[in-house]
Amino acid sequence: MGHVQCNLVVLRERYAYEFLLYCQRNQRACPVLEVTDTGNPEPRRLAPGADLRTDLPRYAVYRHGRRDRDATDVRNLWRDDFVAFLIGSGITFDQALEEAGVRTTKDRWVLRTGLPTERAGRFRGPLVVTMRWLEARDAITATQVTARFPFNHGAPLHIGDPSAIEADLARPYFGPPVEVVPSDVVPVFWACGVTPQEAALQAGIDIMITHSPGHGFVTDLRARDLALP
Amino acid sequence: MGHVQCNLVVLRERYAYEFLLYCQRNQRACPVLEVTDTGNPEPRRLAPGADLRTDLPRYAVYRHGRRDRDATDVRNLWRDDFVAFLIGSGITFDQALEEAGVRTTKDRWVLRTGLPTERAGRFRGPLVVTMRWLEARDAITATQVTARFPFNHGAPLHIGDPSAIEADLARPYFGPPVEVVPSDVVPVFWACGVTPQEAALQAGIDIMITHSPGHGFVTDLRARDLALP
Repeated sequence: MGHVQCNLVVLRERYAYEFLLYCQRNQRACPVLEVTDTGNPEPRRLAPGADLRTDLPRYAVYRHGRRDRDATDVRNLWRDDFVAFLIGSGITFDQALEEAGVRTTKDRWVLRTGLPTERAGRFRGPLVVTMRWLEARDAITATQVTARFPFNHGAPLHIGDPSAIEADLARPYFGPPVEVVPSDVVPVFWACGVTPQEAALQAGIDIMITHSPGHGFVTDLRARDLALP
Repeated sequence: MGHVQCNLVVLRERYAYEFLLYCQRNQRACPVLEVTDTGNPEPRRLAPGADLRTDLPRYAVYRHGRRDRDATDVRNLWRDDFVAFLIGSGITFDQALEEAGVRTTKDRWVLRTGLPTERAGRFRGPLVVTMRWLEARDAITATQVTARFPFNHGAPLHIGDPSAIEADLARPYFGPPVEVVPSDVVPVFWACGVTPQEAALQAGIDIMITHSPGHGFVTDLRARDLALP
């Protein structure tokens, strides 16, 4: 809590330019916080001394777009041509939300939408969003709080009816299927840092390593350092 | 006035990943607003229908790090492996400053400093800044106004003594040499979008095309669309 938390995407240098370009073209969903030097697993800027091959609690490994077994250490898979991307996660602003009185520990999902992202080479796909169910008062507070994080998704991109953005409630990336949205909450949606992972997955590249959902990389950087005053 | 104005850097795709990474690592100076698809001179996102080979008022052409003759049309130099980068210019917020009562038409320089940027591969070099001389009251207003443009350099990075950041007053990038700073003004410094151009120049790559100083690309995008509310 209070530290910048990141989504991880590791892929081969031959895909790195197109992937970085995809992130640049879809900045709100894909705020790139660090790109390691090719072959070097140390995120020198966000967490000097850390090793991205061992310091995440759990990794997902994808081969040709299909999920292989998870791992808790990927040193044996590491290659000299790997580049690691650390991408801002919406969990980063949880402490700021809590401090403003908005509860963050429940009613949170990660969902695909029908909104397209802007393509870069082989990378394309739908926008992925984080949905939180909030009371009306908290939806207003959360909008103000997260707007102060322009480099970490910023303000919500939608409030209200999930079907307006074709949010896929039946098959969440994270969280159980949603059957009915209760009438006493407002669904609030933020662009999500899982978006580029989905694009890389759809591209079906030979090997990709990511954090396993819910097991991101916690950096040394304080969340407040990413916020506007 | 009121439109987003950009610095242009065109280089070969083989340098594009390292250059984009350099910009990512030095975001405050190098806000990348668009990267064209390889070989395509149309900035589809910022100015659909424009042609970056003809639509700037003047181009600077560099070969192996040395400035060749300027041109007003670079169609004859264009290559299928060229990638164009449009990078935010501090001129973008001039209208917002004027509307807040801050004069922008005089006392503005572009200067190298002694502050290092973060290296990416062959690209590295000093931070380049825009210096404006402002009355104390205007320096305060300008700080507030530009802080609303986090994706276009944002707030100043220094106010006051130029020697604290080793600003090179004797050999400006833009503007006449500065011999004495008058006592009735406050020098205010912003990270400048010429920074990546300086890095590309120092890298001495075989061919690079940029806008000629003071002759940037004016886009269709309104500056207010880049500002926070």
